[in-house]
Amino acid sequence: MPADNNHPLNRMFHPSSIAVVGASSNVSETGWVKRLLDFGYKGEIFPINPKANEIYKLKAYPNVHDVPGPIEYTILNIPAHLVPQAMRDCVAKGVKFVHCFAAGFSETATEEGRRLEAETTKIAIDGRVRLIGPNCMGIYCPASGMTFGEDFPKETGRIALISQSGAEASRLIFLCQDVYLYFTKVINYGNATDLDAPEFLEYLAQDMETDIIALYIEGVKNYPRFISAVKQCMKKKPVIILKAGLTKNGADVAAFHTASITGAKAVWDAFFKQTGAISAQTIDEVSSIIQGLTRIKQLNGPRVAIIGRGGGIGVVTTDICERAGLIVPPFSLETHEKLLQIRPDAGAMLRNPVEPKLGLEGAADFYLKGLPIIDQDTETDIILIQMAVDIYGGHKPDLLQDVSAAAYALCPAAESIKKPIMVALFSGGHTDTVLAVSAAREILTKVGIPVFSEVEAAARSLSKIYGYYRFLESSK
Amino acid sequence: MPADNNHPLNRMFHPSSIAVVGASSNVSETGWVKRLLDFGYKGEIFPINPKANEIYKLKAYPNVHDVPGPIEYTILNIPAHLVPQAMRDCVAKGVKFVHCFAAGFSETATEEGRRLEAETTKIAIDGRVRLIGPNCMGIYCPASGMTFGEDFPKETGRIALISQSGAEASRLIFLCQDVYLYFTKVINYGNATDLDAPEFLEYLAQDMETDIIALYIEGVKNYPRFISAVKQCMKKKPVIILKAGLTKNGADVAAFHTASITGAKAVWDAFFKQTGAISAQTIDEVSSIIQGLTRIKQLNGPRVAIIGRGGGIGVVTTDICERAGLIVPPFSLETHEKLLQIRPDAGAMLRNPVEPKLGLEGAADFYLKGLPIIDQDTETDIILIQMAVDIYGGHKPDLLQDVSAAAYALCPAAESIKKPIMVALFSGGHTDTVLAVSAAREILTKVGIPVFSEVEAAARSLSKIYGYYRFLESSK
Repeated sequence: MPADNNHPLNRMFHPSSIAVVGASSNVSETGWVKRLLDFGYKGEIFPINPKANEIYKLKAYPNVHDVPGPIEYTILNIPAHLVPQAMRDCVAKGVKFVHCFAAGFSETATEEGRRLEAETTKIAIDGRVRLIGPNCMGIYCPASGMTFGEDFPKETGRIALISQSGAEASRLIFLCQDVYLYFTKVINYGNATDLDAPEFLEYLAQDMETDIIALYIEGVKNYPRFISAVKQCMKKKPVIILKAGLTKNGADVAAFHTASITGAKAVWDAFFKQTGAISAQTIDEVSSIIQGLTRIKQLNGPRVAIIGRGGGIGVVTTDICERAGLIVPPFSLETHEKLLQIRPDAGAMLRNPVEPKLGLEGAADFYLKGLPIIDQDTETDIILIQMAVDIYGGHKPDLLQDVSAAAYALCPAAESIKKPIMVALFSGGHTDTVLAVSAAREILTKVGIPVFSEVEAAARSLSKIYGYYRFLESSK
Repeated sequence: MPADNNHPLNRMFHPSSIAVVGASSNVSETGWVKRLLDFGYKGEIFPINPKANEIYKLKAYPNVHDVPGPIEYTILNIPAHLVPQAMRDCVAKGVKFVHCFAAGFSETATEEGRRLEAETTKIAIDGRVRLIGPNCMGIYCPASGMTFGEDFPKETGRIALISQSGAEASRLIFLCQDVYLYFTKVINYGNATDLDAPEFLEYLAQDMETDIIALYIEGVKNYPRFISAVKQCMKKKPVIILKAGLTKNGADVAAFHTASITGAKAVWDAFFKQTGAISAQTIDEVSSIIQGLTRIKQLNGPRVAIIGRGGGIGVVTTDICERAGLIVPPFSLETHEKLLQIRPDAGAMLRNPVEPKLGLEGAADFYLKGLPIIDQDTETDIILIQMAVDIYGGHKPDLLQDVSAAAYALCPAAESIKKPIMVALFSGGHTDTVLAVSAAREILTKVGIPVFSEVEAAARSLSKIYGYYRFLESSK
């Protein structure tokens, strides 16, 4: 197992052995053992099940203390009332990390749940075992072969996610995969009675394999340490936070999810202002911001050049950008004159937004000839390509090929210019347009062009990314 | 041609004959004549082209005055400088309506463009010809076979659209088609030098074939008449308005699109407050609101019951709804107890949002057993079904079939309950999930269940629809 640094938490992502307490002997269901085997975990796996001799051809043991060699990491897949004793066994065995998958603790809002949680946590802390959970999915780390989703991508990337929600973590992993972005480490840590967001952040701040940190959090227990850890990260890499449970009933729902105290909105508003962390409201938005941060380097200002359908679509696109805090100024006179040479009949449609000759061939042609001109424009900082494929919602022959051709034309054109570029590619619901957009997104994101599913997502993300770059400038 | 009423503008949508001045004799391009023929316009078509004898087997004439019988409607497809003379010819011929497709007028911001526009308009008004445009696509009315998009649906519905943008009109037509909603009349009227939004609104207010009116507008010339027309409509049917050009540069772009003076944001804020018209910021939002208004009847309050993935997804869904001005309260104790009987192991996941047993089969089962219980809940007014198909972003065998089966299970269940229902169905970008979502949307919308592509769109639309129903109550 490659260790990327000597931080004590590093072994949690790269354990040399994993015991699964409550390993399922039913081969028809996907348990933790099968998941680790299928995903390619290379360390030793010890199934713990007093009723089985062998699970998936691995020798099974009645208890962790029956395992001959050392165990670095243990997953507890047993009912809550059995967890305290299992934790005692782990302490006795010298296990370093315990991931308590089991639920049924304080999130049930019962006396017994709270008691079991307190007891388990005390055993872990006294015994110097680090506890992830309870009530969580644990770790996904493609480099070491650890996963909680059997169909998560095996590719390693440079994004880390700290999430109190396993489902939202899964969604983010897949949304990023759709645009060829991958994770180095994902932690789903549930009720967070021992290991909590601040400690994960401190680890990720110095983790050389992580460039961007995303968080889904409902509550924070040690608020000063959390602020300090976020600040520490922000000095080195961006932190995006989806703070859930900021509305009245959202907070109540969160209390029943991870027993979190979500905190007042005003406190969190102040937090974002103070730390410069990037705030997001949905997982889709988190994925858009990740994509922008990864693929939009060097943003010198908030002035957007828009290439796409003009007319009303151009007006609305401009409104959306300006509402998001961006600026859509007219091009310089020089740019206008140069554009007039390649589009002599376009007149006012060259102002910004600029409209290529209608049709997808016209768009492809303009990417080659027009992009270098707009690259030189002194009035704009970034180029937004708007591809409204939903306008071909009826039946257009060869739509898939034509949209793909436009995307293929954009790839080298984008490569050859200096300004950053982003694409808003939207489909509507017609199957033809949906498939054409899927194909084009694949072509574009594969070469690192950021693609958003609507202008609003592109504009809001860009505005937040610009805010982050300004924050970096101001903290120099 | 069926005439739905005796309003003078009615013949504009149902003319008995159409002349196309500047009819293309090139059969390889889709001109106005071919478009009308293909779309099934049943009246007489007179191609006007001094260089052709016959176009698409129709006798061509050098000028409108050479046509033997009367002409009710004429499309001008000629360069702007020829338009004034063509308009004189139309006046002399007694044409009732002229649609000036030609551009090159005041939107060019040139002296000559403004002069040509003023001259053309004066000729029309003095000659008692009603002018649509210039610089526009004209009329789409499936019942009479008039269209400006060759692949627009032939189905007639009960939505009317007044739009200064042809492209945004096309997008809306297709977005609605994707969810089985259709239009009765669409008017794209460009620079609006004679016929303008107020007059179209007055017509649509009393049009028995129109239930919902949508507008895309950049500017209004006669503001008092516009307000009065909107108020007149709002007494009988909802009016949704996408007011474009409300940001600084958006306004400038609009000026070059339709030569509109867009007006200050404060004025429009006051307008929406005063008239109760429903404000939208994008065409996607217009389509969502149309779907909601059409399919959510009888909304007694803003309290939402959510069925879908719980945990973090439930917290975020609750936040999104409450941010949009809706309420996600806990169910009544009675509801909770009944739900506990069908989901005895679910504990807190029954509070609201309620989580069916995981997996798509679990969802389908819950729609049958759980919906009738939530239908009886006294604390909630509407049911939001959240189907996060993007969570199956990797590889899941039979995803299309399983998602379709869940959708099929929902159809009769939704039919059998009293509370309104809406679905947020989201896919992520993976082709498998995208196709599964397309299939499910088709199944659901075909039977009239409103489907939205994200929770945000569903919540924002619902909030606006509830605002409209409250406005109706308060104006009783």
